[in-house]
Amino acid sequence: MADQPQRVRERRTYEKFQPPKRVLLGPGPSPVEDRILEAMAAPVLGHLDPLFLGCMDDIQGMLRYVFETDNRVTIPISATGSAGMEAALVNIIEPGDEVVVCIHGVFGERMRDIVERAGGKPIVVRAEWGHAIERANIEAALDSCKPRALAIVHAETSTGVLQDLTGLSELAHERGALLIVDAVTSLGGHPVGVDRNGIDVCYSGTQKCLGAPPGLAPITFSERAIERIHARKSKVQSWYLDITMVEKYWGDDRTYHHTAPISMNYALREALRIVCEEGLEARWQRHELNHRALVAGVEAMGLEMNVAREQRLWSLNAVRVPDGVDDARVRARLLNDFNIEIGGGLGPLKGKIWRIGLMGSGSTRENVLLVLEALHSALNEEGFRCSSGVEAAAAVY
Amino acid sequence: MADQPQRVRERRTYEKFQPPKRVLLGPGPSPVEDRILEAMAAPVLGHLDPLFLGCMDDIQGMLRYVFETDNRVTIPISATGSAGMEAALVNIIEPGDEVVVCIHGVFGERMRDIVERAGGKPIVVRAEWGHAIERANIEAALDSCKPRALAIVHAETSTGVLQDLTGLSELAHERGALLIVDAVTSLGGHPVGVDRNGIDVCYSGTQKCLGAPPGLAPITFSERAIERIHARKSKVQSWYLDITMVEKYWGDDRTYHHTAPISMNYALREALRIVCEEGLEARWQRHELNHRALVAGVEAMGLEMNVAREQRLWSLNAVRVPDGVDDARVRARLLNDFNIEIGGGLGPLKGKIWRIGLMGSGSTRENVLLVLEALHSALNEEGFRCSSGVEAAAAVY
Repeated sequence: MADQPQRVRERRTYEKFQPPKRVLLGPGPSPVEDRILEAMAAPVLGHLDPLFLGCMDDIQGMLRYVFETDNRVTIPISATGSAGMEAALVNIIEPGDEVVVCIHGVFGERMRDIVERAGGKPIVVRAEWGHAIERANIEAALDSCKPRALAIVHAETSTGVLQDLTGLSELAHERGALLIVDAVTSLGGHPVGVDRNGIDVCYSGTQKCLGAPPGLAPITFSERAIERIHARKSKVQSWYLDITMVEKYWGDDRTYHHTAPISMNYALREALRIVCEEGLEARWQRHELNHRALVAGVEAMGLEMNVAREQRLWSLNAVRVPDGVDDARVRARLLNDFNIEIGGGLGPLKGKIWRIGLMGSGSTRENVLLVLEALHSALNEEGFRCSSGVEAAAAVY
Repeated sequence: MADQPQRVRERRTYEKFQPPKRVLLGPGPSPVEDRILEAMAAPVLGHLDPLFLGCMDDIQGMLRYVFETDNRVTIPISATGSAGMEAALVNIIEPGDEVVVCIHGVFGERMRDIVERAGGKPIVVRAEWGHAIERANIEAALDSCKPRALAIVHAETSTGVLQDLTGLSELAHERGALLIVDAVTSLGGHPVGVDRNGIDVCYSGTQKCLGAPPGLAPITFSERAIERIHARKSKVQSWYLDITMVEKYWGDDRTYHHTAPISMNYALREALRIVCEEGLEARWQRHELNHRALVAGVEAMGLEMNVAREQRLWSLNAVRVPDGVDDARVRARLLNDFNIEIGGGLGPLKGKIWRIGLMGSGSTRENVLLVLEALHSALNEEGFRCSSGVEAAAAVY
């Protein structure tokens, strides 16, 4: 075919893309502050430019603060949160390894899938979607095998459930297993306490409670985890996510591995600066307060939360869709009439819950009152009569 | 440990990061036009927002134009160019598959590494770094095994060599092998001609001749490749890069897979708009012209190109470091005195070549003359006497 004349596909003209400013109250991405958007518009540096290396150091320092860890290897993976999950698992697991995987939503299922793709054997502990995993079941699963790791989701984005991490590291470590925690929807909004909770590998995404756009996956490895990785008999199956190489680029060696996404790192740095300015405790308190106000409003409307009080995430609120109400149509009304994005349910919860995210800079009094008012209006338009939750929510503040 | 008081690491204050505007004439990232930087500062949409789905459709359409293909599955992978390489290989290869891998630089070596990590058996064809792979050697390697694929780098970023793709697809297809081509440093600067050249999988990066920041890996799969993937006996080892799932998010299903890096996609869309406005042929001609001018200038200075004339990339120019000149010190002078980034050599070419990139919006007459003048000055400062190449370069225009 090479001797044919060069054929080039017809080129079209495309308009400039001008997205509106949505109120992002779904399961993520969360609203991004202008400061962070502007940071991405800064000139691109080379990935080995001394000035960019300084930017990387700052990011690592701030990530240690946010993860509450002294771990040396604390970096952003150059891909989105799901790649953080994959990096956590494929670096630790070798073919044949048994891994206790806790499943109570989409992201636990995804962990199981990745464990299998890495040649591991998942030993599954389940809870019904909308409930936390019970500690006794975890212990029994750990005792039923020779676990390489215990993998659990701290904040199940698909259900709005917060998993208590207390004591899990002891359960795991006593049996020679590493504790791997998914903190995608909790980091920066809930205490995660990597060192305090004895977590060996913890990963997150930038587009939830950290308030940056999606594109990077902050991750941290304990020295115990790093030793484990260096003791592997086989290479990590993913070249791109191989932390033994990635750590050399982010560490003192500065060895070229791949070209880091420069502008995304600018965004993360600025988002982390905002976290540092606010302070973690103040940020947690803000997330909790706005969550409580939303719940008060939702319940005053006669709607029900899908998760028991003591297991609720502050960052993601699962509200039951009332009988007879069309989930998708209400969400479309919110989007089209109010410019508000909220999420629908996934898997067994599809059509049954709405997922209202109050994450990062989206967790504000204004947004709580706005989404309650919009939901009230949309439900009434749908013929579902309910009172406004705004007053009850405002009373919380 | 959980009953200890919550301890939070000390938080520090970080200054705003204000990178200078470098003249990026290294192996990438290339200079990013202001229009593209501004596109990233647009409000973030949700990854399932109907308006973002439209943005995705536009990107796919423009990528087909740039790749010169009608392939349905033509998308950006949500990670950098190296993840594009990994996606290309791990989707095609199953354990035990034999793959002919052509190695004449860093990126061919990387392909071999990834093939092995995927359980494949690389059959290696080598050329000396700085030379193209010989067709007869490829044919012999293909005949020595039952190849699942032939993998080759079109534009070796580590050496500046352009590999002729003519006839490779026939060699591969006659033997039942798929042709996998790395076009990271050629797409948008050189003709790649995916359909014309019978390429089955072709990937690139955004930060080279497309002129966007790093962060995404455009990739395209022929229907032959997609059939192969759907006929796999085992799951793709990477969940994140599994094209059978990724294609459903980018295709008509719109099934949630991972949260796309929204802002990076805005940047890619704007960069592709610029390519469409200029037109591919005009863009190729511009890259060729500026390359020729640079070479004329370099040779007029008494320096030598490291690659034979007919094998030279237009986008990346390998210039030999003259005897007695300190490679790193010259590059530091360019960076510190002129704000210009160029690249050094890698592997066996470390300290022996400079890599001068003229990619995307960086491929201009101004930059050619600027880098020649700066190089002339830096070399004279180093005590290496040479004449200016500016006049010879200007004569090319």
